Amino acid sequence: MQTLIQSVLTLPDKVLERDGLDPHSLESVDVLLTGCQIQAVAPAGTLPQTADQRVIDGRNKLLLAGFVNGHTHSSQVWQRGLIPQLPLELWLSNVFESTPRHLDQLYWGAVSTAVDTLFSGGTCVMDHAYVIPGQEMETVAALVRGYRSVGIRAVVAPLMMDLPFASGFPKGCLLPQSASPRAARELLALMEAMVAEFHDPDHGIYVGLGPTGFHRCSDELLAGCADLSQRYDLCLHTHLLETRAQHRVAQERYGIRAVQHLATLGCLSPRTSLAHGVWIDEADIDDLARAGATLVHNPVSNLRLGSGLAPILKCRQRGLNVAFGCDGAASNDAQNLLEVIKLGTMLHTVTEADYDRWITPEQALQMATVGGAHGVNLGDRTGRIAPGFEADLVLYNLDHPSLLPRTNPLQLLVLGRPTEVVEAAWVRGRQLVDQGQLLTLDRETLHDALRHPPMASPESRTQHHAVEPHYREVMLNRP
Amino acid sequence: MQTLIQSVLTLPDKVLERDGLDPHSLESVDVLLTGCQIQAVAPAGTLPQTADQRVIDGRNKLLLAGFVNGHTHSSQVWQRGLIPQLPLELWLSNVFESTPRHLDQLYWGAVSTAVDTLFSGGTCVMDHAYVIPGQEMETVAALVRGYRSVGIRAVVAPLMMDLPFASGFPKGCLLPQSASPRAARELLALMEAMVAEFHDPDHGIYVGLGPTGFHRCSDELLAGCADLSQRYDLCLHTHLLETRAQHRVAQERYGIRAVQHLATLGCLSPRTSLAHGVWIDEADIDDLARAGATLVHNPVSNLRLGSGLAPILKCRQRGLNVAFGCDGAASNDAQNLLEVIKLGTMLHTVTEADYDRWITPEQALQMATVGGAHGVNLGDRTGRIAPGFEADLVLYNLDHPSLLPRTNPLQLLVLGRPTEVVEAAWVRGRQLVDQGQLLTLDRETLHDALRHPPMASPESRTQHHAVEPHYREVMLNRP
Repeated sequence: MQTLIQSVLTLPDKVLERDGLDPHSLESVDVLLTGCQIQAVAPAGTLPQTADQRVIDGRNKLLLAGFVNGHTHSSQVWQRGLIPQLPLELWLSNVFESTPRHLDQLYWGAVSTAVDTLFSGGTCVMDHAYVIPGQEMETVAALVRGYRSVGIRAVVAPLMMDLPFASGFPKGCLLPQSASPRAARELLALMEAMVAEFHDPDHGIYVGLGPTGFHRCSDELLAGCADLSQRYDLCLHTHLLETRAQHRVAQERYGIRAVQHLATLGCLSPRTSLAHGVWIDEADIDDLARAGATLVHNPVSNLRLGSGLAPILKCRQRGLNVAFGCDGAASNDAQNLLEVIKLGTMLHTVTEADYDRWITPEQALQMATVGGAHGVNLGDRTGRIAPGFEADLVLYNLDHPSLLPRTNPLQLLVLGRPTEVVEAAWVRGRQLVDQGQLLTLDRETLHDALRHPPMASPESRTQHHAVEPHYREVMLNRP
Repeated sequence: MQTLIQSVLTLPDKVLERDGLDPHSLESVDVLLTGCQIQAVAPAGTLPQTADQRVIDGRNKLLLAGFVNGHTHSSQVWQRGLIPQLPLELWLSNVFESTPRHLDQLYWGAVSTAVDTLFSGGTCVMDHAYVIPGQEMETVAALVRGYRSVGIRAVVAPLMMDLPFASGFPKGCLLPQSASPRAARELLALMEAMVAEFHDPDHGIYVGLGPTGFHRCSDELLAGCADLSQRYDLCLHTHLLETRAQHRVAQERYGIRAVQHLATLGCLSPRTSLAHGVWIDEADIDDLARAGATLVHNPVSNLRLGSGLAPILKCRQRGLNVAFGCDGAASNDAQNLLEVIKLGTMLHTVTEADYDRWITPEQALQMATVGGAHGVNLGDRTGRIAPGFEADLVLYNLDHPSLLPRTNPLQLLVLGRPTEVVEAAWVRGRQLVDQGQLLTLDRETLHDALRHPPMASPESRTQHHAVEPHYREVMLNRP
């Protein structure tokens, strides 16, 4: 079965390759899909129409490669709006105490994440996933089931750590020590079992390695993840220097830069993506760029948690691939990629006076598509509208009121506040959205699930109160 | 005719008065509206129901005082998505060349601004309005007609300047000098005529004094506006130190702080609201606070134009009233108050490590309501849900998918990305929105107007190219 999208505006692939600014970069093309793939892209009106094709009129519409949500935590769907504004380390102690621990909640968390991603222009999710202790395989099964039920492309990288919570704090040894998580060897065996059970590239479902971050992981665990990443060609995804506190933890523990330490352990490769990187320096950027790794920028979450401004302009200038992430719904209470892209396109202006260096809408879309695809180790499959790439596509309705008047559609998509503008979407050639409706799942069942049971605020904030005085002392009173 | 809203969640007025944080600050109340006013607010289930009342079931809903959009330029609706990302001074030269110059466009600009405001929780707009030279009265008539056709409360403060464009640049004397605008005396007479013709507090339409900013206004014009503000009890609204360039203009021209200069001219009073203030210092804040003036924070626009971070936390800590503004659609390509409030609640975290000082959702709503009302000189009429205040109210549907799951509704409203959540809205007791539908105007007529004629990109960027080398030289090459 072929689909022919006729006379649709798009951002030509060559614009995504170069780094230039072109205010009139859109072109009108025909795009032919065959099976999972994009078969042909040609000037509008030039691809022949045959009887057995589905034909879509692309006029007044914009077709873009699907965005990649390069970093989120799907379980946090249940914690939207719940956690007060706090720095990461304190916020986490609140998150732990209200984390959903039922498999059906985690299933619906994946469904919700997939739906929000699709309807904000995304076709692929990196789920740095919370897994229920003792039910790790069952959790991943529930998440995979959630993503399959919507049909989105997903990488599930279960959060793994073998150091206790207190390890994430400077002078964490002064804090009460919680029970140790599982040992590295056990976790690595578990991950290998997950790969065997769930990794399914031919159907758009991938297992990633998701060590929480160096601050919660032993060298053995990190090196083991790097080894698995290489052996199975898997994305290695981890938090990196999200906060000033983590920066100090690295200084205390390693005496060298955290990125140097990760490099020594073999963790940096083109398969590696690192979330946040707010506190990386120029030497870090150069190390990461040299390795071909990806930094995932989560601007909404970084503001929400007061983590700081990630040096995204420097990353791009020094050749480090940058992608966008929503981060989990407990630190970005929306899961809307267009919102993240908008903020990510503007936020860095506070650090750079030279407007010629600001990120253009075209560059932001490059980060969201090509950059995102590379970040999940799928740069050869998705992220471009070009023959041979899999058909992960989103069609936007330019006649929607939130995209009026018709000025520069790309700039309005990126810098406006588009809502309900996704008219159609395909993942691996399968159409998931048509006329703004999800074809694979009744969204009302999702909304019903989210209504019941309502999550209560964490009544006990025991862990918060246990660590807050320490945090204030080491981070604010003794800077 | 009375309206009784029963058992609705709301943020109690006392929370808006104090500056504290209360994660469970919502209460369930009955609210009784009589004519234009709020007659009573009482615990849920306690207000008696009578036969001639309209009764609204407030369960699963949140009622807030309408927000005030403290600063926008309605004509820029036609320039959404059009202007590249540039610093204000260069962006302006692009804006001028693509400004709509037909009265019907300006009418629809006002309608669009009113609709976007209402459907993002606002009930009052400060329109710092572009007026067509030579058709100033006709322009204001068109704007007032637009606001009346929707029914929103509006302050129209026509942009007035008597110094040429080049005056807004440091070393502007080196630039080609454009024709001088009208003389101060003529502009002041015009404003007085507008007050006589259009100022209509009894029907929610106000004229404000809108000198563009000190950088484009003579002392005579500024002092004359201050005099009119006092004589007619009008809001005086002006741009203040939006950019580093304006800061340098003030140094060049006055040799003292711009705020000191404005104070000397009598421009600072409780009727004064100042847009942006990105480059004000602590002495400025103290001067403004002492005068009882209002700073209008436009966080989206400030990022879009790279203007910098307004010192909002310092303003609040030093007792200066702060309101929110969308700014015009050419520098905030959406006109959504909830988006502005979200960014304004989070952006300042990059300058303040102490999380106890971050703005809470409750405080942000105080700024959007009470703060906004004071900023447009209407603090005794709107901005609170309290007996005697006019009924400017917005009812949110907490069952909407974008507000699920039900955690902390207030925090999710402020920190999420709510869409289509405004179920009902009243301005001065008149219901403008019911069941998500605008009652006063067919929104489709607005969308049709925005579709035709499409605005073209400015083909000529003559003015941009005339000033860009100068700007680069004085602002970037010789800092």
